Amino acid sequence: MVGFINRARNTDMNASLSFRQYYSEKLDLFEAYLKQSFPTLPKEVKILEDSMRYSLFAGGKRLRPVLILTTAECGGLDPQIALPYACAVEYIHTYSLIHDDLPCMDDDDLRRGKPTNHIQFGEAIALLAGDALLTHSFRLISSASSTSVSETNRLKIISILAEKSGIYGMVSGQVADIDNTETDNPSAKLNFIHRHKTGALITSCIQIGAILADFDPGEVDLLTEFGQEIGKCFQIQDDILDEIGDEEALGKTPGTDQRNETLTYPKIYGLEESKKLADLSYQKAIASLDDISKDVDRLRQLAGFVLKRDH
Amino acid sequence: MVGFINRARNTDMNASLSFRQYYSEKLDLFEAYLKQSFPTLPKEVKILEDSMRYSLFAGGKRLRPVLILTTAECGGLDPQIALPYACAVEYIHTYSLIHDDLPCMDDDDLRRGKPTNHIQFGEAIALLAGDALLTHSFRLISSASSTSVSETNRLKIISILAEKSGIYGMVSGQVADIDNTETDNPSAKLNFIHRHKTGALITSCIQIGAILADFDPGEVDLLTEFGQEIGKCFQIQDDILDEIGDEEALGKTPGTDQRNETLTYPKIYGLEESKKLADLSYQKAIASLDDISKDVDRLRQLAGFVLKRDH
Repeated sequence: MVGFINRARNTDMNASLSFRQYYSEKLDLFEAYLKQSFPTLPKEVKILEDSMRYSLFAGGKRLRPVLILTTAECGGLDPQIALPYACAVEYIHTYSLIHDDLPCMDDDDLRRGKPTNHIQFGEAIALLAGDALLTHSFRLISSASSTSVSETNRLKIISILAEKSGIYGMVSGQVADIDNTETDNPSAKLNFIHRHKTGALITSCIQIGAILADFDPGEVDLLTEFGQEIGKCFQIQDDILDEIGDEEALGKTPGTDQRNETLTYPKIYGLEESKKLADLSYQKAIASLDDISKDVDRLRQLAGFVLKRDH
Repeated sequence: MVGFINRARNTDMNASLSFRQYYSEKLDLFEAYLKQSFPTLPKEVKILEDSMRYSLFAGGKRLRPVLILTTAECGGLDPQIALPYACAVEYIHTYSLIHDDLPCMDDDDLRRGKPTNHIQFGEAIALLAGDALLTHSFRLISSASSTSVSETNRLKIISILAEKSGIYGMVSGQVADIDNTETDNPSAKLNFIHRHKTGALITSCIQIGAILADFDPGEVDLLTEFGQEIGKCFQIQDDILDEIGDEEALGKTPGTDQRNETLTYPKIYGLEESKKLADLSYQKAIASLDDISKDVDRLRQLAGFVLKRDH
């Protein structure tokens, strides 16, 4: 994690220093809550608990939870209140990685520099750990004890999360991604994949933070646009990093996507044009924040962080 | 389905006839709603829609939705209002069947007399169709448009459903079921498996119906007991049917459980004692209804139906 924070050096030094500190604070808050709220299971199913914990605490960047906490805080909410929601999204993100790595999907042996869940626990337990994480995310939200979030908003958040991680988002993105049939419009297909597979969940984080902090509906729309553009920026960067990254930095085998004949931005547009597209999304993201009355500087910095990350 | 209804003949003729009609009516109501509310997906992911539909409309008994509709109606609620909740549970039940059948789990080729989802669509799509069904179930509840159910009750139902189908229920039951390590207390293990794997979701149906119809908290507890006992009765019957059933009636290869060295009631207690245990659960279920002030005769009949089913 420290490495991740350090690598964000190549932004303006002062803003960056203070942003690194901000990110780090949010991260500590989140990690403590994630650990403390992690469920203990009966001895009969200790292996399920171990398998869930293994992937949940495998050293992810926690970008999605930090997006929620930051958006909520920009809206004036105590980030403590947003923690169960940030947890729920990280559970969903983790489940998606476990299932994506399975032999019948991407068949990856390595994730974040460690054996993938099914290599460590076997396919059956990995599959079930994914199912458990997904299911439990909805329990985290529906049984969150704080009364600071209205029931209307909690139901709205559950609906958005199920939308963006299910058939109208992540699952459909993955289905399109593994579809190997020829297409006469590869850039439209690539766009569909990324908008659904990665973009939808990232967008939902901004929406969830915005709803939690009771932003005006018009501002929720602007923040949604922001979320869509940084989701796109994130995915283009991911494709670029996969193309040029080295194994040490990524913690996974570089070039996997190309080997599997997956569509990527560098493959369709070339590396230089892809970098321009990432920057364009970043610019659009920043512009969508212009008309928001509240101080959303931390979101601007987060967008820069997404653009400039190197893993 | 007609066969299923006809086979319930060996109960008292008049009550049975009217109950068969009742079940059939609820079934029609449910099937129509399930069909009408089934989502249409964009052309890019038509195969996901096909795969979800294939398993969702594979001719299941719909016991779980009918349990919800019946409990809600006994409590005086228009069953129409309970339909999205009944759908959600059937989505979850269907997802669990698809994932259970996968090669890394039970590796079954046949389900309800048809090729299993992964035989028909491949493992990757089957896995994702399961993920999609599970996720969408929470969207069905959180975005249900009727205002007849309070937001408090909707959140309570989501929490129960995530509890009973996740780490505190179905997923843990499945984890214990595939655990092949030696046990010095097989009947305790069997009890754990069935209480979690099948019992929890069946119990949740009764609880959901009871909450929807605003039964008193004390009566919800009694109905929960009822749900637990019919869940147990259902599973003992399932084990008995698997032991003696024939392929035509079950739509799956009989004796699969014994072949896989899975613990079953007949294996631990013998066939005759298992039948007595099923009847005992039925009697306990019926007894728990005695102190409920509302007319719950349909639930008594449903319990008899669970006990006497032959597939």
